[in-house]
Amino acid sequence: MSYTLGIDYGTNSVRALVVRCADGAELGTCVVDYPSGHQGVLLDPRDHHLARQHPGDYLYGLEKSVKGALAAAKKTKGFSAGQVVAVGVDTTGSSPIPVDAGNVPLALHPKWAKNLNAQCWLWKDHTSHREAAEITRLAAEIRPHYIAKCGNTYSSEWFWSKITHCLRVAPAVFRAAHSWVELADWIPSVLAGVTDPLAIKRGVCCAGHKALYAEDWGGLPDKEFLARIDPQLAGLRDRLYEKAHDATESAGALCPAWAKKLGLPAGIPIAIGEMDVHYGAIGSGVAEGTLVKVIGTSTCDCGVVSAEKSVPDIPGICGIVKGAILPGFYGIEAGQSAVGDIFKWFVEGVLGDPSLHAKLTAEASALKPGQSGLLALDWNNGNRTILVDQLLTGLLVGQTLYTTPAEIYRALIEGTAFGARAIIERIREYGVPINRVVCAGGIAEKNPLLMQIYADVTGCTMLVAGSSQACALGAAISAAVLAGVHPDFPSAQRRMTSLKKVAYKPRAAQRKVYDQLYALYRKLYDSFGGVQRSADLSGVMKELLVIKDAQR
Amino acid sequence: MSYTLGIDYGTNSVRALVVRCADGAELGTCVVDYPSGHQGVLLDPRDHHLARQHPGDYLYGLEKSVKGALAAAKKTKGFSAGQVVAVGVDTTGSSPIPVDAGNVPLALHPKWAKNLNAQCWLWKDHTSHREAAEITRLAAEIRPHYIAKCGNTYSSEWFWSKITHCLRVAPAVFRAAHSWVELADWIPSVLAGVTDPLAIKRGVCCAGHKALYAEDWGGLPDKEFLARIDPQLAGLRDRLYEKAHDATESAGALCPAWAKKLGLPAGIPIAIGEMDVHYGAIGSGVAEGTLVKVIGTSTCDCGVVSAEKSVPDIPGICGIVKGAILPGFYGIEAGQSAVGDIFKWFVEGVLGDPSLHAKLTAEASALKPGQSGLLALDWNNGNRTILVDQLLTGLLVGQTLYTTPAEIYRALIEGTAFGARAIIERIREYGVPINRVVCAGGIAEKNPLLMQIYADVTGCTMLVAGSSQACALGAAISAAVLAGVHPDFPSAQRRMTSLKKVAYKPRAAQRKVYDQLYALYRKLYDSFGGVQRSADLSGVMKELLVIKDAQR
Repeated sequence: MSYTLGIDYGTNSVRALVVRCADGAELGTCVVDYPSGHQGVLLDPRDHHLARQHPGDYLYGLEKSVKGALAAAKKTKGFSAGQVVAVGVDTTGSSPIPVDAGNVPLALHPKWAKNLNAQCWLWKDHTSHREAAEITRLAAEIRPHYIAKCGNTYSSEWFWSKITHCLRVAPAVFRAAHSWVELADWIPSVLAGVTDPLAIKRGVCCAGHKALYAEDWGGLPDKEFLARIDPQLAGLRDRLYEKAHDATESAGALCPAWAKKLGLPAGIPIAIGEMDVHYGAIGSGVAEGTLVKVIGTSTCDCGVVSAEKSVPDIPGICGIVKGAILPGFYGIEAGQSAVGDIFKWFVEGVLGDPSLHAKLTAEASALKPGQSGLLALDWNNGNRTILVDQLLTGLLVGQTLYTTPAEIYRALIEGTAFGARAIIERIREYGVPINRVVCAGGIAEKNPLLMQIYADVTGCTMLVAGSSQACALGAAISAAVLAGVHPDFPSAQRRMTSLKKVAYKPRAAQRKVYDQLYALYRKLYDSFGGVQRSADLSGVMKELLVIKDAQR
Repeated sequence: MSYTLGIDYGTNSVRALVVRCADGAELGTCVVDYPSGHQGVLLDPRDHHLARQHPGDYLYGLEKSVKGALAAAKKTKGFSAGQVVAVGVDTTGSSPIPVDAGNVPLALHPKWAKNLNAQCWLWKDHTSHREAAEITRLAAEIRPHYIAKCGNTYSSEWFWSKITHCLRVAPAVFRAAHSWVELADWIPSVLAGVTDPLAIKRGVCCAGHKALYAEDWGGLPDKEFLARIDPQLAGLRDRLYEKAHDATESAGALCPAWAKKLGLPAGIPIAIGEMDVHYGAIGSGVAEGTLVKVIGTSTCDCGVVSAEKSVPDIPGICGIVKGAILPGFYGIEAGQSAVGDIFKWFVEGVLGDPSLHAKLTAEASALKPGQSGLLALDWNNGNRTILVDQLLTGLLVGQTLYTTPAEIYRALIEGTAFGARAIIERIREYGVPINRVVCAGGIAEKNPLLMQIYADVTGCTMLVAGSSQACALGAAISAAVLAGVHPDFPSAQRRMTSLKKVAYKPRAAQRKVYDQLYALYRKLYDSFGGVQRSADLSGVMKELLVIKDAQR
């Protein structure tokens, strides 16, 4: 019997999971909340774009979660930590960390400990939207191929935007940083005992479009390009990496110090780090024709297309990167910047009572599509796909003097469903088939209302991944393949992944109403999103009332 | 010493007020809530457009409020009910009541008591929006002058829309009604003991544009016009009235039965009934160049222009009617369908806690203009002026994941302020000067935050009427003039009205930001309101963020 360990760094907590390689059985898990900031996120009350994380929290959580998961697994007869044959890690991203020449994050030095710019720049930090626009403009002008695979728009959530912003607002931090490392690469490097940033095995998953890395153009962006943004960035290029790897490569072997700390065998291989949702896609059974949606605070959509085929550039899709998810396949990534976060904002931030989720869900479930007369844009945290614009905001229309919280709650869910449909339609439009949708994440498991609305809005049956820890499971699968327990990913996925019994099927009557509402959603989407610059919105409120009257 | 009694029928309650004619001193007042329905309004949970009122509540409230006010006044030494020389009445409107041949409301007969269509059709009932559109179309086609003075749009809030809707949805009620009487005419007729609907002295205030009455075209709309809507309406015309009167005319003398019931001298004159806000304008000191804003659940704006001048048709303005407010002047009426109702909806209907008003006001007061990044359209109950469209709804844009209830609260207040500015600009645009703005109503007195925002948004100093019961005071002033205590309205207003000491002055820095926000508001207004049918809204969210960043 062999086991692997998957470690999943989420936005608010880290989870470790012990998995049996033979059948994917999950023997033990442990979740540890990050102790710093607001639910693990360092905020700046003066700037809602800012979101950072203290690297010390990662190390604290690493030890605590792994030990906890091993302790839990030990309750299963016959298991011992010595049977763990490999470790896999996934994290949020792009979440770059400034490190010194010894691979120690600046924030772990007392001098920088309190400096927000010296922390990990969490994926959802949008302070660098101006830099993102600047990089997009420059690439469009002199290196259009750099951004062709990421929807022709470089995001404020990504590596170079964040580092450039740091250089501009905190030059001392930039100068003090010997290198910058993605969280997904840094954790494996810590486990492997790597003390030189240049020796870190970097994953192509994060390097891909996020750092504008591609073998086609010799790795990272060339120095001429970087120097046009700032000469210091060109200098930094030499202190990053030449090559990034897919999951066929190992990130290293578990170093004795961490082996001892965690109680694992020293020397076992560590899988290449990937972003949470990418390993989540693997843990949910991603394959050609299957779209995996990891639905949580935000949503990430992942698909794969054989690397032997040619994949078109799909405008507005976050990234199409070879090897980013499965080796031998292009990974296609899309997403919505906020999903669960929007409901959470409404219930906790506006209504001020987290316990209302259940009541509102019950009331919203009793409503028919269109019955509220409301329509929402799901842009409270910007639009990642397909507009790639973080400077968009939420919108709600159709309120009367009788609009209820449950109606708003449902409209917000529907808004995210319409956003999901826009993504599916865009991917299909460019010839990538989607025959099967598998959802993972807390919301997919716990919110039948949302799942049914998604089915009714998109017209796709919504399947649910068997594991509640799909990301950690995917990391464990990658570790199992790396350790040679399974010959390849498809074999490992067949053995180690499953689906839940429940499946949400689209219903004809609801689909029809949602088709009408979606047409109005697209009108707002295209107008406020800048797709359509001479829109006639005079009918929107009236058409919503017509649908409302018909549904009453 | 002489006194008059003003009786003010609001949406949720009736107020009686005893006023000293010499100086406007308010000796006694009493408010009585209507006992039926939800806060006095009969609703239909299946149709949020419906709002009715039980006529029995009016009689109950009449006796109770007058007796209460007299009792209170008697605490003032020297006052006795025998010194009351006249009575004035104002009510909401257009609020027509179906009555039988004896001037008894159908709803007071057991057969019709529970029938929603046999009740008073409250001003804010919008069930007849289709009929309003139909009347507008027909008038535009064959009688354009009928609607030229009411902004070229006939409203669902008005007399003929409501009666036509009744005819369509409840033909039995329509057939049973011998006549229809505006609440403002019906109460004086009850006090005068009128038992024949054709003998009621009807006021031109309600008849004006609301019943499409004008001397220019021989009174009510002609039978040919009415028959095009429905032949039965042409038949009804004979059972309504030939002539409507301004406040120089008496509605009758207090009949012995009601004199006894109320404890007042029989035979004292009763002033012509006017709508609450029109008498409110008089009680707030309306005069040429002065705009009176009565700010409550909704807002009504009133101005007057000498009848010796010519007044232009002002598109979108509710009505320009000779004698509707002051005899000898054109009354100009505009308004916003919901103001206080919007804040109430958000605090009570969404947040579910009426006690939050104070907390939200305090927090919203600490915010700068534009700081929230939010912008709201104030159309939760449609747009009365200047779009005259009840089929418009609310809109909120600019939400992030950090938007607070106080930010939304302030944005809703600002939305109504922008709506107020649009009205002022429209009136001025057509050459009617506004040199002075006097506000009345509960919100004007109790909400300094709103008043300051209105000043900053409109650029006008906001004065506050001295009386907290401006509508009842206006009715009492009309009664005083009718009884000959004062020679005319201006003299009576000089003696009996005042201003509060507080005045809200526009502040330059805030005005500048609000000018920017107002430009965006107008973009949304024109796009969703159908004024502009090829709008570019791509910049709205971004410009809000730019203003937000600048204000932080």
